[in-house]
Amino acid sequence: MKPTELRIGVIGYGQMGRIHSYAYRAIPFYYDGQPCKIVLKGICDSNETLAKKGKEQAGFEFHCTDYHELINRNDVDVIDICTPNKQHYAAVVAALQSRKHVYCEKPLAYDLREAKKILELAEKSGCKHQITAEYRFIPAIMKAKELTGEDFVGKVFHFRGLYLHSGYIDPKRPREWRLQKEMIGGGVLVDLGPHILDIMHHLVGEVEEVCALTETFFKERPSPENPKEMLPVDVEDAVLLLFRFRNGALGYAEMSRVATGAEDEMRFEIHGQNGALAFNLMKPNELLAFNAREPRDRQGFKVITTVQKYPPPAVMPAPKFTMGWIRSHVAAQYSFLDCIVNDRMPSPNFRDAVHLHQVLDAAYRSVGKKGWVKV
Amino acid sequence: MKPTELRIGVIGYGQMGRIHSYAYRAIPFYYDGQPCKIVLKGICDSNETLAKKGKEQAGFEFHCTDYHELINRNDVDVIDICTPNKQHYAAVVAALQSRKHVYCEKPLAYDLREAKKILELAEKSGCKHQITAEYRFIPAIMKAKELTGEDFVGKVFHFRGLYLHSGYIDPKRPREWRLQKEMIGGGVLVDLGPHILDIMHHLVGEVEEVCALTETFFKERPSPENPKEMLPVDVEDAVLLLFRFRNGALGYAEMSRVATGAEDEMRFEIHGQNGALAFNLMKPNELLAFNAREPRDRQGFKVITTVQKYPPPAVMPAPKFTMGWIRSHVAAQYSFLDCIVNDRMPSPNFRDAVHLHQVLDAAYRSVGKKGWVKV
Amino acid sequence: MKPTELRIGVIGYGQMGRIHSYAYRAIPFYYDGQPCKIVLKGICDSNETLAKKGKEQAGFEFHCTDYHELINRNDVDVIDICTPNKQHYAAVVAALQSRKHVYCEKPLAYDLREAKKILELAEKSGCKHQITAEYRFIPAIMKAKELTGEDFVGKVFHFRGLYLHSGYIDPKRPREWRLQKEMIGGGVLVDLGPHILDIMHHLVGEVEEVCALTETFFKERPSPENPKEMLPVDVEDAVLLLFRFRNGALGYAEMSRVATGAEDEMRFEIHGQNGALAFNLMKPNELLAFNAREPRDRQGFKVITTVQKYPPPAVMPAPKFTMGWIRSHVAAQYSFLDCIVNDRMPSPNFRDAVHLHQVLDAAYRSVGKKGWVKV
Amino acid sequence: MKPTELRIGVIGYGQMGRIHSYAYRAIPFYYDGQPCKIVLKGICDSNETLAKKGKEQAGFEFHCTDYHELINRNDVDVIDICTPNKQHYAAVVAALQSRKHVYCEKPLAYDLREAKKILELAEKSGCKHQITAEYRFIPAIMKAKELTGEDFVGKVFHFRGLYLHSGYIDPKRPREWRLQKEMIGGGVLVDLGPHILDIMHHLVGEVEEVCALTETFFKERPSPENPKEMLPVDVEDAVLLLFRFRNGALGYAEMSRVATGAEDEMRFEIHGQNGALAFNLMKPNELLAFNAREPRDRQGFKVITTVQKYPPPAVMPAPKFTMGWIRSHVAAQYSFLDCIVNDRMPSPNFRDAVHLHQVLDAAYRSVGKKGWVKV
Repeated sequence: MKPTELRIGVIGYGQMGRIHSYAYRAIPFYYDGQPCKIVLKGICDSNETLAKKGKEQAGFEFHCTDYHELINRNDVDVIDICTPNKQHYAAVVAALQSRKHVYCEKPLAYDLREAKKILELAEKSGCKHQITAEYRFIPAIMKAKELTGEDFVGKVFHFRGLYLHSGYIDPKRPREWRLQKEMIGGGVLVDLGPHILDIMHHLVGEVEEVCALTETFFKERPSPENPKEMLPVDVEDAVLLLFRFRNGALGYAEMSRVATGAEDEMRFEIHGQNGALAFNLMKPNELLAFNAREPRDRQGFKVITTVQKYPPPAVMPAPKFTMGWIRSHVAAQYSFLDCIVNDRMPSPNFRDAVHLHQVLDAAYRSVGKKGWVKV
Repeated sequence: MKPTELRIGVIGYGQMGRIHSYAYRAIPFYYDGQPCKIVLKGICDSNETLAKKGKEQAGFEFHCTDYHELINRNDVDVIDICTPNKQHYAAVVAALQSRKHVYCEKPLAYDLREAKKILELAEKSGCKHQITAEYRFIPAIMKAKELTGEDFVGKVFHFRGLYLHSGYIDPKRPREWRLQKEMIGGGVLVDLGPHILDIMHHLVGEVEEVCALTETFFKERPSPENPKEMLPVDVEDAVLLLFRFRNGALGYAEMSRVATGAEDEMRFEIHGQNGALAFNLMKPNELLAFNAREPRDRQGFKVITTVQKYPPPAVMPAPKFTMGWIRSHVAAQYSFLDCIVNDRMPSPNFRDAVHLHQVLDAAYRSVGKKGWVKV
Repeated sequence: MKPTELRIGVIGYGQMGRIHSYAYRAIPFYYDGQPCKIVLKGICDSNETLAKKGKEQAGFEFHCTDYHELINRNDVDVIDICTPNKQHYAAVVAALQSRKHVYCEKPLAYDLREAKKILELAEKSGCKHQITAEYRFIPAIMKAKELTGEDFVGKVFHFRGLYLHSGYIDPKRPREWRLQKEMIGGGVLVDLGPHILDIMHHLVGEVEEVCALTETFFKERPSPENPKEMLPVDVEDAVLLLFRFRNGALGYAEMSRVATGAEDEMRFEIHGQNGALAFNLMKPNELLAFNAREPRDRQGFKVITTVQKYPPPAVMPAPKFTMGWIRSHVAAQYSFLDCIVNDRMPSPNFRDAVHLHQVLDAAYRSVGKKGWVKV
Repeated sequence: MKPTELRIGVIGYGQMGRIHSYAYRAIPFYYDGQPCKIVLKGICDSNETLAKKGKEQAGFEFHCTDYHELINRNDVDVIDICTPNKQHYAAVVAALQSRKHVYCEKPLAYDLREAKKILELAEKSGCKHQITAEYRFIPAIMKAKELTGEDFVGKVFHFRGLYLHSGYIDPKRPREWRLQKEMIGGGVLVDLGPHILDIMHHLVGEVEEVCALTETFFKERPSPENPKEMLPVDVEDAVLLLFRFRNGALGYAEMSRVATGAEDEMRFEIHGQNGALAFNLMKPNELLAFNAREPRDRQGFKVITTVQKYPPPAVMPAPKFTMGWIRSHVAAQYSFLDCIVNDRMPSPNFRDAVHLHQVLDAAYRSVGKKGWVKV
């Protein structure tokens, strides 16, 4: 019997916790009450001020500071994890052991070993699990997936993916937790990599071999507490990766936090025997598609305006209006809840997350070895 | 003393009523609880099914089918009107008489006469009033306004504005209420015109003279009830307008529902002595700005990436992420509530709405006269 | 019997005379010796220094300062006229009377009356005649013509054309001959109008009615001889035109010399029942084409990369390389010579030029009348 | 004493020989007779039909089939080499030994060893030498060089360069000479690489280390003589390269002949401490420049319209008109002749060519070693 309501508990009310909470609240408007009633049950943050704020802002029924309290309740069905990477493992494991469905921010774990253990547990649990990879839920990328599924691209020759930010160009930007390997497991590869590498995996397939190059341009930065004290940075600002895919395609991916001029620039291009696709997250309303099977003199990249063209039951707003970044979170969370209600396997799930961790792991090994390594 | 909460009543739960309700719900997330607590008090729709749906979807405390019931309550501070144009007048008048602040969908009234009477009443009432012109609240357009305020453009030579839709290209699209002059007061000029003409007014100034051309390409369409029966269309599919502004600039504006290839294409370009600006609603995250005072060999249109760069207290999401259409409604309604809380004059208000009706009125007179008319 | 060579005489070696001469020299390379041998016979300029320079630079066999000398020779087959507008009439008439084929810079004449007389004479003469409207010979526009010929656009609803320059924004720019009505017959309408109005005519058809608005933003400018002396400007800096076409379409065109930020911005957009087209001369290598008969969810503007894709016998360079402005002159002149060799009617010819003058004439009458006039 | 004329001999009248010949003919028009009189003396092609055609088409004084005949003449000052790579070495050596100035198509030689020997000889000879790297002579790239020279970009973090063609996607395309290592020395790296790698060198500096990946997607292709016979392809269709520069920057470059959708797509992006630049050869009239030292809220990529903005004495056509691919050849050859006349060192010369060959050589070694190699 399908559940008629899902009761959500969110762990972590920082930036992402707030966005996820907002998205749960927005689902009933965008999807006309589908897939079921959503109850914002509890919000947990080790910082009580934030936990309280979450309760008030989003209308949770209660707040707490110990996530076990949330996880152990019987009136919570879904646990949504928005804490820093280092803290994912314990919370995911506890949630799965308590038979909650788990929605977890990317990357799933601190490292490959943790990710594999989580997956094993998740598959045994019978619970639904999904990783936050909201870009799969942008209509332009959904259209790209639809097209690759129809062999629009054909045998792939090239994948080229970038994820460029510029926030760390300022040498005075402090050495915050995000710049400590101990806290996050790596640098920009771990931070931005999961997004573009997930799309690569989604649209092109699995990686066989990788060769990576990393650089830390700013090797020390001021302490957040004392700007006169310089602290070492032990994670990379930029990473460049060459790939060979199992299907024979060649790939390139690059992530950078010092790509001057970039705001939130995730781009990809795919070239294949039958066609080509291109996308830029800064123009999220467009998919570029080139059909090489059209007559030569009529070929060109077609700018498919995808805007709010979500499949039903999405009904708000009218499909001609532009969408922005936050809409993709609403769609990702809707999809997760819909999979729970209709007992389908969510995607991307922890299995995808493990493949991603394998690529991250291989990339760092490649840097150490200065050459190619198998995934 | 500043109010600590505002209690909202919405009239009409069609597409726009739902969007406005959603936006009130979203404000606390985007603005961290500012400007005050928002209570979704009551929703009214003459169709009870819709009224009930609004109550459930958005969490209003009650619903009703007679708007007087909503307007006459003491526990409602703000009336938000989302009904068809023809019905605005009576509701706005009743709300003002009941001393409610009024947020009204564009255009304010059925015709200029009604608009003037509303304005007179509004100014006497001491209540706050704002017209839905959400595009003023897109960061790119806020940046354009900031720049024009700094004389970035200088003396204006040209304004060129388009608002293009394509939804009525299909001859089989039925003759719905939007295609009846009696219901809406006009065609695409009344439907899309208010948006682009408001931006024109906002950025360039007041119109002195207008010369308009209209056309109804599909002079009859099937009845919504009986596709075999053809009904006359008495409103225009397209309108082209030449303007002279009071400040000496020349202007052009065009609205069309048969602009094949357009989704929601509101574009404008402004050329002046010092610089130029350009915007396209399909790329809402960008403002193009040309500075003619830079050295000649370094000039060019700069693509200012405005994305979620709303002024504080907007805090969600991070300002590097793209925004979409719906975000501008949140900002417009936030601004209205903020004006009530802080006792400032909202903008665009009913005074702006009257100027807009004067332009609409002059445009239709120009068509009748086949020549130029004064506004 | 086809001619095996054509002997060219050029009148006027200013900027345009030089470009035409260059283009004749370039034809053998681009077209592999087609359509026949081209002999640069004589160059005439009333300024002997320029005439001599033309001889040396382009390799003409002789130079002269009186165009009758050139026109009256038996060893000249083609007269190419590159003088200011005011001087076209006498030279064209003399050339036609001397049974030369005539290639004439736009606009054909000083006014409609002259243009009609030229056409009458040209048609009697049996000589070939073509007007310089080189933009018809850009591959992107050739592709647009091909598509409209295939009913890709279908019944046209809208044409929207702009030709924007910015060279006259500087108030210190002198009152040169181009700003005197006596010399050129009008302002920007006469200068830039012929290009965009020719493309409009080419792709959409004939105009029935026009309503125009002109403005001279800088009503006086410094004398070229004495910057302290201000001279009146009696021609418009900008013109805005509304059209009704004979086929029922609506049109808009605008020309300006004070469009800040524009280099050489000729743009057009056409919307019709079946599709839409768009072009911008600043991106001459692309035609945007929207096919409204494709499935809705796959629609979009396709950027057809037209580059050097001229029809055979054009062979240089490879068709994948970008083309620029000057290439279109080579193609236009090739086409004219090819029509002579193969005894076909060139296009656009003096008949097209007369229609253009009719539109220019009607536009100025409309300004005087402040309303609509028939063409 | 400055030469008053330069007498040119061209070797090879295939596609490139024709383009170079055209460009010499065009120089007097574009540059008003500068830098001196140009005499097209002789054209040589081992295929006499082509040699004759060159003579007629371009107006050379004589033709021949043995290049020694051309090189040994006293009335030839400049030798321009347009033969396949394999044949460069012997001709360049002979020309230098005969004390001719040499303009040579890229890449200079078959391999690094040959290139070094040529350079040694060239430097001894005192003759001027330049390599065809015409993209340095596009105004947009000249502007990029000017900006990097002014520290607009500052310390470079990233270079990203692509050169994408799609001509070899068709499996039926024959195994022509360009696909034989013996004839050309390599695959797409040797064919398209010199262009983008030259620009990289020009704008960013010298490479220290490289790691490359190549792939031949179509391992055999039909014989040009007998489509039923399949011949092996021993050169790569695609190459991906990671770089570390001597200045600490990271680089990526990719060349492909199977990049579906690409016409002639050479793109690059540079990100540095102070700014960023971007260029795409398919939009040759634009340079994108981002100034990170502007106020944050006014930043953006500025689209500098470079069009025909060549430095004087370039005078044709007016600088507002778009330029295309072929114009860059005219500028490159003008620059070479100007260096001869004014006794300056041309750039890029054979020294640059040797650095390029070092990078190509290192790249192929990297492929063999499956890892990083020093240049």
